[in-house]
Amino acid sequence: MLMKTPLRSVLTIAGSDSSGGAGIQADLKTFAAHGCYGASVITALTAQNTQGVHGVHPCPPEFVAQQIHSVLEDLEINAIKTGMLYDVENTKQVVESLKTHYKNKPLPSLVCDPVCVSTSGHTLLHPESVELLIDELFPLATLITPNKAEAELLLSSRNPFADITSLEDMLSATEQLLSFGSAAVLLKGGHITSTMTDVIRISSGHPGINVVRQGLYDENMEILQTGIDVADHPELVVDVLYQSNGKKSLFVMPRVDSTSTHGTGCTLSSAIACELACGLTLEEATKNAAVFTHMGIEAAHPMGKGHGPLNHLHSLTTLKIPQRTLYNPYPFTRMLIQSTAKLWKEYVEHDFVKRLGRGVLEIEAFSHFIRQDYHFLKYYARAYGLLAAKSTSFLGIESSAQAILNILQEIQTHRALCESFCINFQELENTPEATTTTAYGSYLITVGLEGDATKLLVALMACLLGYGEVGLWLTKEASKENSWVVMEGNPYKKWIEDYAGQHYQNAVKIGLETIETLAIADPPSPARLEEWRGVWERCTRLERAFWDMAMDARK
Amino acid sequence: MLMKTPLRSVLTIAGSDSSGGAGIQADLKTFAAHGCYGASVITALTAQNTQGVHGVHPCPPEFVAQQIHSVLEDLEINAIKTGMLYDVENTKQVVESLKTHYKNKPLPSLVCDPVCVSTSGHTLLHPESVELLIDELFPLATLITPNKAEAELLLSSRNPFADITSLEDMLSATEQLLSFGSAAVLLKGGHITSTMTDVIRISSGHPGINVVRQGLYDENMEILQTGIDVADHPELVVDVLYQSNGKKSLFVMPRVDSTSTHGTGCTLSSAIACELACGLTLEEATKNAAVFTHMGIEAAHPMGKGHGPLNHLHSLTTLKIPQRTLYNPYPFTRMLIQSTAKLWKEYVEHDFVKRLGRGVLEIEAFSHFIRQDYHFLKYYARAYGLLAAKSTSFLGIESSAQAILNILQEIQTHRALCESFCINFQELENTPEATTTTAYGSYLITVGLEGDATKLLVALMACLLGYGEVGLWLTKEASKENSWVVMEGNPYKKWIEDYAGQHYQNAVKIGLETIETLAIADPPSPARLEEWRGVWERCTRLERAFWDMAMDARK
Repeated sequence: MLMKTPLRSVLTIAGSDSSGGAGIQADLKTFAAHGCYGASVITALTAQNTQGVHGVHPCPPEFVAQQIHSVLEDLEINAIKTGMLYDVENTKQVVESLKTHYKNKPLPSLVCDPVCVSTSGHTLLHPESVELLIDELFPLATLITPNKAEAELLLSSRNPFADITSLEDMLSATEQLLSFGSAAVLLKGGHITSTMTDVIRISSGHPGINVVRQGLYDENMEILQTGIDVADHPELVVDVLYQSNGKKSLFVMPRVDSTSTHGTGCTLSSAIACELACGLTLEEATKNAAVFTHMGIEAAHPMGKGHGPLNHLHSLTTLKIPQRTLYNPYPFTRMLIQSTAKLWKEYVEHDFVKRLGRGVLEIEAFSHFIRQDYHFLKYYARAYGLLAAKSTSFLGIESSAQAILNILQEIQTHRALCESFCINFQELENTPEATTTTAYGSYLITVGLEGDATKLLVALMACLLGYGEVGLWLTKEASKENSWVVMEGNPYKKWIEDYAGQHYQNAVKIGLETIETLAIADPPSPARLEEWRGVWERCTRLERAFWDMAMDARK
Repeated sequence: MLMKTPLRSVLTIAGSDSSGGAGIQADLKTFAAHGCYGASVITALTAQNTQGVHGVHPCPPEFVAQQIHSVLEDLEINAIKTGMLYDVENTKQVVESLKTHYKNKPLPSLVCDPVCVSTSGHTLLHPESVELLIDELFPLATLITPNKAEAELLLSSRNPFADITSLEDMLSATEQLLSFGSAAVLLKGGHITSTMTDVIRISSGHPGINVVRQGLYDENMEILQTGIDVADHPELVVDVLYQSNGKKSLFVMPRVDSTSTHGTGCTLSSAIACELACGLTLEEATKNAAVFTHMGIEAAHPMGKGHGPLNHLHSLTTLKIPQRTLYNPYPFTRMLIQSTAKLWKEYVEHDFVKRLGRGVLEIEAFSHFIRQDYHFLKYYARAYGLLAAKSTSFLGIESSAQAILNILQEIQTHRALCESFCINFQELENTPEATTTTAYGSYLITVGLEGDATKLLVALMACLLGYGEVGLWLTKEASKENSWVVMEGNPYKKWIEDYAGQHYQNAVKIGLETIETLAIADPPSPARLEEWRGVWERCTRLERAFWDMAMDARK
């Protein structure tokens, strides 16, 4: 399960983008990609798509307040992000609601993305709201995340217009923006062209500044770069982070040539809010969020006729094995059985088993089976030896060794059982190994050679679980009134009781626990799961063949 | 990357739930969990939380139309889901917009969740809209998904009030609902108690009906159920699906005792829309969506003071290796190197390498190195033999064999090189194996024994890539003006040229391609990736130790 424990909840207060690429839609997708629970207060609806904003319907301020109140009075929120606030009334309302709700308790991390104008040029914040944003909201904020245009707009409200065109301009603008009262400022450099020369010049001129390189090739990576035209990527994007505690950082990334940039700002600020909700420092949060956003652009599918959205889901994949719950304690094993339901039934309800339960199984069949099982158990024990060799923990080594000892005990039972059927030890040893036995035994060793411990355990489980199932099933059936299973006077009673008994069933439970624990600790990819299912199916088939062979011996 | 290729887009037309558990928020989370792109048209805003709906702000009808227009004129939509439509005007607007947009092309799958009343009793559809829903929207729908209360409300608008209390009632209600004109009806049984006896009675009375069991234990699973108090779960939830083509299905699931049910209906209908967008049949779509929703309830974190939301992210996990892109063709290898950057530098820029590049490396050091490397390469070749044994494709077997042949050629070069340093073949063979050589060589064999092919390849790559890197680095440095690397008269020139040469570099590229392909085809879980990083680090450390050993031989 992706959603983090303890659950981290993030609230976005922003506009809605009908096309799903920006606004609360981008925010909710980003929250989901970070495993955070998302709530959203909508300040305004927009009708927009990849080509532009076609209309805005602002939400009444009192309804903005009501939404905030509904969320905050009921849910524990770990971080808040604000986006498009649209007008003076709504901006005022957001500030007041936050102040009211957090009057007596600390405000969670607040990331304020000062959305002013859409990429397509549509006004998303009334000009008269700018002062309010600066005076009232910024002082509450952990971080503000303006881009070039927003920074220029914010700064020009106080001073003569400052055009930001260089990395030097960015540093000075960031410093001025910090004076507006937020705990930190991240000035995004997406619209400013920088090169490594600029970065080196700045970093040598500002000794305290921390340069965070991301997605760039380091030294000692000659080979990884051969074939890439690095000259195609001389342009860098540099984001500047200043914190009121004096820390300064540059985040340096290669520029991606892409039209899939709709919602980039929303995504970055949301991702930072998620990382802060999870307890990261502001610098780590910004670094991870920048990588997340960068990869979202790189991995985007082209969509729409204009600037398409990012791919917010680039880092997600689907878990194929459900979680263990009270009602479903062995979901992985259950999935294996259900994936081969017909075959599994043919194995555990084999005619051999039914005849054995009725006490009418021909002695030739049982005798052939027990002799071949004797040979098979040697392979089976050796496979557990391989499992011990593959285990990297003492626990794993111990349980493999214990399994071998259990098998040796099973062998003793076999010998005693054989003697009751007048097959002596020497006869057992001298019985030639049947091809079916070689097939199954060698297959276990092969799986043990080719894969890891879990794959081998899957192969070993079909036998371990199946015999336990047979023992339990026959015993359960025998307990019913007028049952077809006869225990009284059944020559195979001891065999049934052994597999239904506590000792064997305990071994099965240990095997189940081990495999379920492994499957959760190291959840398989779809390809790996398919491989495991293949192994399980092969082994179930080989089990069925084993009893087919015994039945054929009656001829 | 989770997002499906070709990209599947789903549009929800519904209300907004500020608390994030229902409405377009639940829809967008469900779309994301299914790897679908989500767009959303908002019909009304609600201020609500887990305890109830505190306010509704309907969106002006013309703005609903404008949102729909913005989305549909720009994006290719594969399925549409409608939820809360709130009033007559908005319902009318949705119907008209869909009819207008799909006048000349087929409407995508349309799942209509006839949301009427919230769980907490709040009216989410004005009563006078019901007729409109039935007359205008249902005939466009692929599926309608009422629950008990909604079905009763819909049916009572036409006939005397029909109370649905049994599975029989459900079947008859579903039939009547189908007459309203949708292509199918899914009547949800969450508020009706059924047992397996009911299901058996119904299915034997209706021979054509398909019973889909989900999450229930089948036969031959005695062991998996031991310890579960199955008697605690006698109650079933049965959903009934009727299609206008005559197909009828019952979806039978265990009832989950949970208060985390806020948004269940939104989630189910959204999940069905996703599955339909991906091309599944209605029955498969319903089956998968029901499992998804069921697991969302089972895996929910308790949230809020009332009915908490589902966990929409229960089946997601994070991919740890970024995608291969033009600028980042070897992301997995790059991640390995960057995770051990300092150690990697100490290896490929070892003093041994630098002295070798300058041509001043002491002969004792080189001689010791080349003799030990001769022993090491035997292990190295054997490890590739193990890799061949672990490969399940002819391609894997072939590339392992080719690697062995390359190593044998490297051995020939070593012999020739040794002769130029007056070390003859016999001397090479007779040199005792150093502990450092045994450590590295045996470690490779151990990794080969304990894990799968990919893990072994990770172990083999540190050597393969590192020597290629050294060769390329020295050659690149040598090409610079006034370089510290001297090729002219350097006794180790041939050694450098061999590793920088096309033949060796090609082998490195094949290794890189193989490992990157494997890492994408079978993406590792965080635990597995950590294991691989451990192997990589150990091998890098052993490589560094190998050259340390050579330098120590100078004493």
